[in-house]
Amino acid sequence: MRILLGSGGFGSEERRALLCTEMRRFFGDVQRILFVPYALHDHQAYRKAMVERGFSAGYEFVGIDSYANPIAALAEAEAVYVGGGNTFRLTHDLHRYGLLEPMRQRVAEGMPYMGVSAGTNVACPTMQTTNDMPIVMPPSFETLGLVPFQINAHYYPGQVWVQKDGAFLEHLGETRADRIREYHEMNSLPVLGLSEGTFLLREAARYELRGGNAVLFRAGFPELELKANLDLADIFIG
Amino acid sequence: MRILLGSGGFGSEERRALLCTEMRRFFGDVQRILFVPYALHDHQAYRKAMVERGFSAGYEFVGIDSYANPIAALAEAEAVYVGGGNTFRLTHDLHRYGLLEPMRQRVAEGMPYMGVSAGTNVACPTMQTTNDMPIVMPPSFETLGLVPFQINAHYYPGQVWVQKDGAFLEHLGETRADRIREYHEMNSLPVLGLSEGTFLLREAARYELRGGNAVLFRAGFPELELKANLDLADIFIG
Repeated sequence: MRILLGSGGFGSEERRALLCTEMRRFFGDVQRILFVPYALHDHQAYRKAMVERGFSAGYEFVGIDSYANPIAALAEAEAVYVGGGNTFRLTHDLHRYGLLEPMRQRVAEGMPYMGVSAGTNVACPTMQTTNDMPIVMPPSFETLGLVPFQINAHYYPGQVWVQKDGAFLEHLGETRADRIREYHEMNSLPVLGLSEGTFLLREAARYELRGGNAVLFRAGFPELELKANLDLADIFIG
Repeated sequence: MRILLGSGGFGSEERRALLCTEMRRFFGDVQRILFVPYALHDHQAYRKAMVERGFSAGYEFVGIDSYANPIAALAEAEAVYVGGGNTFRLTHDLHRYGLLEPMRQRVAEGMPYMGVSAGTNVACPTMQTTNDMPIVMPPSFETLGLVPFQINAHYYPGQVWVQKDGAFLEHLGETRADRIREYHEMNSLPVLGLSEGTFLLREAARYELRGGNAVLFRAGFPELELKANLDLADIFIG
């Protein structure tokens, strides 16, 4: 299995360059990548923007929405890139088109899977550690389970701040750690809080953090900070 | 109908004082308030903390979880306060205990309803504009519909910032406005972004913003900033 999961937050020039470097390293001499744009509303505009804004790293991106039969498109794909947006909408469409089991099979056979943000969330057993708004009800929160734990994308520690009249004001809502603790009140899977601009690479049973750090949350254990370039094989037995 | 909906973010001393002032103005000479703690995991600890930390404004708070029959408890209640926490968990339990329709009826008869954060979200037609993590799947996103529009609690404009090594770094995830725009790609109800420390008061057909401001999002229209103390009757025909 070859899986590359990006947290998101690739809007800056430096981070986009990192994204493209990681993509070329991961996809190598693949020619065409099947792009899954379901997390955004306008699929064609999304694919176009990815290419024009340099997020396709020079690969040919073919939208799964351009095929009459998405399952057949997946069966023939060399590699897959599942883009970010709204995770509820993405999960809804993966169920609607019957893509969960075919995707799992292709990835198990060795087809490279890359996801960013929502595309990372759906690589987990469930979409329950998303930060997105429930704009549509999927039939279930079950997702692909390409890794045996949950990921919280766009992770940050502590409180956030908002700008008002040029000053920073603390926002008093729940922190991410609060939300993940609430997840663990009702669920038991470990949750990896993946900082923006960071990737988790899985090659068979080997897991590696690239480009940034992460925090591991396990029910009943203290948080564990994980540094870049760490081999996570000892932590995640996949 | 008498409804008081707080955005949340009452963690500072000043905002807690505002909360208590608004509660006393709203509940008046009510003696006992039925407290609905379902949004948090530990119901008894939640009620205790509300009282000890001064969030009950001197009223007697009786937890709905202390009754064998929550529908009977609601039938006898003078007033209701639905606390914050996780909106998925709260919605799940409101459905589980069959409380949606009985709550609507009591509020229609004049029982005062106060909600904060998650308790504000469930006062809307659906819980679809929550910021919370989907830690549990409710049977439906349908909620009480005590107001004919959606509210986004803890609203802030623009991007958020995180602190790293003493400096502020911009977080590159979706803004609230982005998320609400995505909601409007699939849904049509207006969404009121309610700033922290702000209340929406409904008395019959009259709506009033108290303590802060809000931004109104309507599909296909520009955002509209709403100032405190504005009578919203012209905007929301309830």
